[in-house]
Amino acid sequence: MIIDCDPGHDDALALLLAVGDPRLRVRGVTTVAGNQTLDKTTRNALRMLALAGVTDVPVAAGCDRPLVGTLSVAEQIHGASGLDGPDLDGPTAEVADVHAVELTRRLLLDSAEPVTLVALGPLTNVALLLRRHPKVTPRVRRVVFMGGSTGRGNTTPYGEFNIVTDPEAADIVLRSGLPTTMIGLNVTHQALATAEVIAEFRGMGTRVGTVCAELMTFFASAYERVFGLPHPPVHDPIAIATVIDAAIVRTVAAPVAVELAGAHTRGATVVDLHGTTGREPNVDVAVGIDVDAFWGLLMAAVRRVGGAPIR
Amino acid sequence: MIIDCDPGHDDALALLLAVGDPRLRVRGVTTVAGNQTLDKTTRNALRMLALAGVTDVPVAAGCDRPLVGTLSVAEQIHGASGLDGPDLDGPTAEVADVHAVELTRRLLLDSAEPVTLVALGPLTNVALLLRRHPKVTPRVRRVVFMGGSTGRGNTTPYGEFNIVTDPEAADIVLRSGLPTTMIGLNVTHQALATAEVIAEFRGMGTRVGTVCAELMTFFASAYERVFGLPHPPVHDPIAIATVIDAAIVRTVAAPVAVELAGAHTRGATVVDLHGTTGREPNVDVAVGIDVDAFWGLLMAAVRRVGGAPIR
Amino acid sequence: MIIDCDPGHDDALALLLAVGDPRLRVRGVTTVAGNQTLDKTTRNALRMLALAGVTDVPVAAGCDRPLVGTLSVAEQIHGASGLDGPDLDGPTAEVADVHAVELTRRLLLDSAEPVTLVALGPLTNVALLLRRHPKVTPRVRRVVFMGGSTGRGNTTPYGEFNIVTDPEAADIVLRSGLPTTMIGLNVTHQALATAEVIAEFRGMGTRVGTVCAELMTFFASAYERVFGLPHPPVHDPIAIATVIDAAIVRTVAAPVAVELAGAHTRGATVVDLHGTTGREPNVDVAVGIDVDAFWGLLMAAVRRVGGAPIR
Amino acid sequence: MIIDCDPGHDDALALLLAVGDPRLRVRGVTTVAGNQTLDKTTRNALRMLALAGVTDVPVAAGCDRPLVGTLSVAEQIHGASGLDGPDLDGPTAEVADVHAVELTRRLLLDSAEPVTLVALGPLTNVALLLRRHPKVTPRVRRVVFMGGSTGRGNTTPYGEFNIVTDPEAADIVLRSGLPTTMIGLNVTHQALATAEVIAEFRGMGTRVGTVCAELMTFFASAYERVFGLPHPPVHDPIAIATVIDAAIVRTVAAPVAVELAGAHTRGATVVDLHGTTGREPNVDVAVGIDVDAFWGLLMAAVRRVGGAPIR
Repeated sequence: MIIDCDPGHDDALALLLAVGDPRLRVRGVTTVAGNQTLDKTTRNALRMLALAGVTDVPVAAGCDRPLVGTLSVAEQIHGASGLDGPDLDGPTAEVADVHAVELTRRLLLDSAEPVTLVALGPLTNVALLLRRHPKVTPRVRRVVFMGGSTGRGNTTPYGEFNIVTDPEAADIVLRSGLPTTMIGLNVTHQALATAEVIAEFRGMGTRVGTVCAELMTFFASAYERVFGLPHPPVHDPIAIATVIDAAIVRTVAAPVAVELAGAHTRGATVVDLHGTTGREPNVDVAVGIDVDAFWGLLMAAVRRVGGAPIR
Repeated sequence: MIIDCDPGHDDALALLLAVGDPRLRVRGVTTVAGNQTLDKTTRNALRMLALAGVTDVPVAAGCDRPLVGTLSVAEQIHGASGLDGPDLDGPTAEVADVHAVELTRRLLLDSAEPVTLVALGPLTNVALLLRRHPKVTPRVRRVVFMGGSTGRGNTTPYGEFNIVTDPEAADIVLRSGLPTTMIGLNVTHQALATAEVIAEFRGMGTRVGTVCAELMTFFASAYERVFGLPHPPVHDPIAIATVIDAAIVRTVAAPVAVELAGAHTRGATVVDLHGTTGREPNVDVAVGIDVDAFWGLLMAAVRRVGGAPIR
Repeated sequence: MIIDCDPGHDDALALLLAVGDPRLRVRGVTTVAGNQTLDKTTRNALRMLALAGVTDVPVAAGCDRPLVGTLSVAEQIHGASGLDGPDLDGPTAEVADVHAVELTRRLLLDSAEPVTLVALGPLTNVALLLRRHPKVTPRVRRVVFMGGSTGRGNTTPYGEFNIVTDPEAADIVLRSGLPTTMIGLNVTHQALATAEVIAEFRGMGTRVGTVCAELMTFFASAYERVFGLPHPPVHDPIAIATVIDAAIVRTVAAPVAVELAGAHTRGATVVDLHGTTGREPNVDVAVGIDVDAFWGLLMAAVRRVGGAPIR
Repeated sequence: MIIDCDPGHDDALALLLAVGDPRLRVRGVTTVAGNQTLDKTTRNALRMLALAGVTDVPVAAGCDRPLVGTLSVAEQIHGASGLDGPDLDGPTAEVADVHAVELTRRLLLDSAEPVTLVALGPLTNVALLLRRHPKVTPRVRRVVFMGGSTGRGNTTPYGEFNIVTDPEAADIVLRSGLPTTMIGLNVTHQALATAEVIAEFRGMGTRVGTVCAELMTFFASAYERVFGLPHPPVHDPIAIATVIDAAIVRTVAAPVAVELAGAHTRGATVVDLHGTTGREPNVDVAVGIDVDAFWGLLMAAVRRVGGAPIR
């Protein structure tokens, strides 16, 4: 598995889940501008891996802006650092001296078997990989991305942040022909960091557990302020969880298009669940989630990471 | 109250509710192309009023196509007649010799007080009234329309039939400055014609009750076939019910725009529930419904109509 | 002939041409918001008819805004009054007590034969007529409109003022199936009010000639300031001239669409001269003009009007 | 200078001009899908360099499709091979074993001074370079591209082929902040391969001159068939000529946007010559051309190339 991300509070938990679950092998982490600027998301990825004691996973920075359009970070949700809340230590490793797209290409070529790409931010890096290195595309087993929605959005009425940030990149990925799974707001808004969740993190009695609790506390206050939601959805770890156990979500194969042209709907993921558009299914769209199983996976991973440095 | 409609199975029940509830006074019924062609929706309105024994409400036909774009009727939902299912008698009254817009203008001028317009089809007639007779606009107390959605649509992934059929008309109405209430799919899909509902209609032992049962039986089979929904939503009567008792729905004032330009989202009602667009609220958007109270109103009205010809 | 206009300096000359040429019969003049607000364009139409001594042509005011979108008048071109420059007398006749659309309907029904509609402003009134009174449509012989362009625009890079002001109205007219002639900027920018033209007006020695000279002097200074063009194009009279003598312009039948959706091109008339779109021709598009013949017609009419009150 | 191209008949002449003029140094040639598929445009670039006897200029293939959207080649203009007409020999050199974007990056880094990029096809490779290697951007002295128009297009009414093929790439380049010169149809349609031009090529008595004559003969028949133009415009060499002698074209600094959203105008270059949009100038737009000087440069280069293998 290769993870492309823009941490981000929920990306941070996703990284912990990925490195903490014994069934996954994280070959590399790449970063993209999104929740915050590229330098911040890259630093945050390195800080989370340092917190987890992970030293053998290369991290490469990718695109610092969308393909088309202008970057607008989610500072009101993730704070000035992109990971406000806990007092995190700095990185212990260096960022790789190659671009995210080049690292991904090398990891794909180095792997004996196809690799799953999990994209947790805007799809800029993935789209660039597809256009710049079309011959390595067959080495991608599947793209699992957190983004979009079958219903309402969180950045515009019908637009989710990752897709709204780079609609053209999403369009490229969705029309690539690669097997693709979409983990949208329609399922992620069912996995909420309630007070019980935060208490469970805090009760672990580990540094990692405490950081998770502090991250979710900050995240909750931001969601309360911006959306009036007391319990924030934990988006990104669900995409990781899906790779661990496909049964975490229920999916349907459906045609999904990205609206590139609308005056009010640019970046909407238009999911045709009833076959009204006549287009062919191109995405496995998550439409249900086993919330308890998801929390089980996440909590176990955070406990494992927090118990002692792994790997 | 003036009702603009395109019957249509749920419009048919809406007409029965409107003429059956003792608190409402229906000043006129106007028709528009939508669920079926104008001649069929007009004939259906006349047939439903005949069924109800109503002879003193003028019916006028309006626009036979949308302002912009092409009419595409919902024959797969409402059948070839627009009111398939029961074996209805023909009309007993003639259609008025004036256009719907002209009848509405006269009724507005004749009324001592402002009048509520309830629009149950595409908003073509209402938009035309606003542009053709801007001086009578102040005599409209409120526009209550069934259409749109805060979430998913029923004609395209984000588009509801009435709005998709004439997005420009909807845009004109929503930007008119008139007090406007939107009854969208997000609430109408909570009022379902279940087997119990159909049984209750049938159990009334009246001609009208039987017709309602037959209408809903056909409607249910269409929704099952097209959407996989065993119990069809009863959209239009909710708009009427709202005029009888505003507490039937819970509304929030929100900015609502109609997407006119999208490649995949034309006709979507973009409802900004979280203030992300920075626009001013222009619509009272129904976001909740008291389903039991609604059915209470509807059943009582159908019983009243079915008992004996009223008025 | 019925003239729908929004005077406007070049509309003013168009009115003089229409009432001054002996071959034309002007059945009515209707006004629309465009170059200035409706009250001003209506007053200007009345003032120009008063100047011409015309008392038997009814004038009716129509739409005060576009179907969709917001009115933005061309005050930088036509001044605060819409007809800045000369010191015109006030109207001598009253505006009719009916809407422009209603006057047009009556004139169409009153005429024994089909009538040509010449539209010199935004097409709002014409579109409203088509949607509100579809049954009178067959009584329109032809729509000749000044608007659009086969190339560049004057309001946006590809948008001409009349079409940009109400693109949906233009779309309705162009898709109506009526015989339609488009007099666009590509031909009107060949008929320029040069110093010689202005001198010829002034040299007529009549009140009307002097007013024409003063109108064109103001118009020239506006075009010089806004576009760097020393000699302003005399758009609208060419549409009238075409009705007098079809040979004034050379036309080709071509598919013409109005761009309703573009971020930078809304209101562009997309004229397919090379059959690249595969659509059917729907408009006779003027692509050449006999400039000398045009000026001959215009000057003769202004001389006739200025010589003595006609009719 | 680095040339990105998709030969194509006029690209072929552009290559001859570039390698034949003694003032230019061609550091590399990269190819892109456009006039034909990537394999054909690459082979054609190699064949033209072989014809010119050029062996020391690396050629690298780039993107085989647009960033967004689908490739639609111009076979009706350039034939099945992309260079129909003459009986060309095969390539004498191999295509480089790196992607066009990587070759360009290396050439930019190897050069002691900034390098001009001349783009003669869709801007896919250039856009990908900007997004993939933003740090080498400052080493680009200027982008000179053939594409777009201040007026009408050649692929859609307002769209020129190169921009219509990849509008998003054009958007990326135009908003990059790099000094950019646009050589659009408005000037290229003034440099026509007349019978005299073809006769001059043929009269050179060289293999290269004969090939040019045969290319232009085929090109002329295609333009005659598709556009009814007896003499085809020689688009791409003008962009090269501009680098040799900036005085070949007259330019104005203007805001240029690419329409990404229109239903009929996608890919139009919207050039604001009159400051109506209020945006800042971002492109030096060619608005005039010294046709005689251009032909002088081109003919001299073809004579030089055809005389004996250069370099």
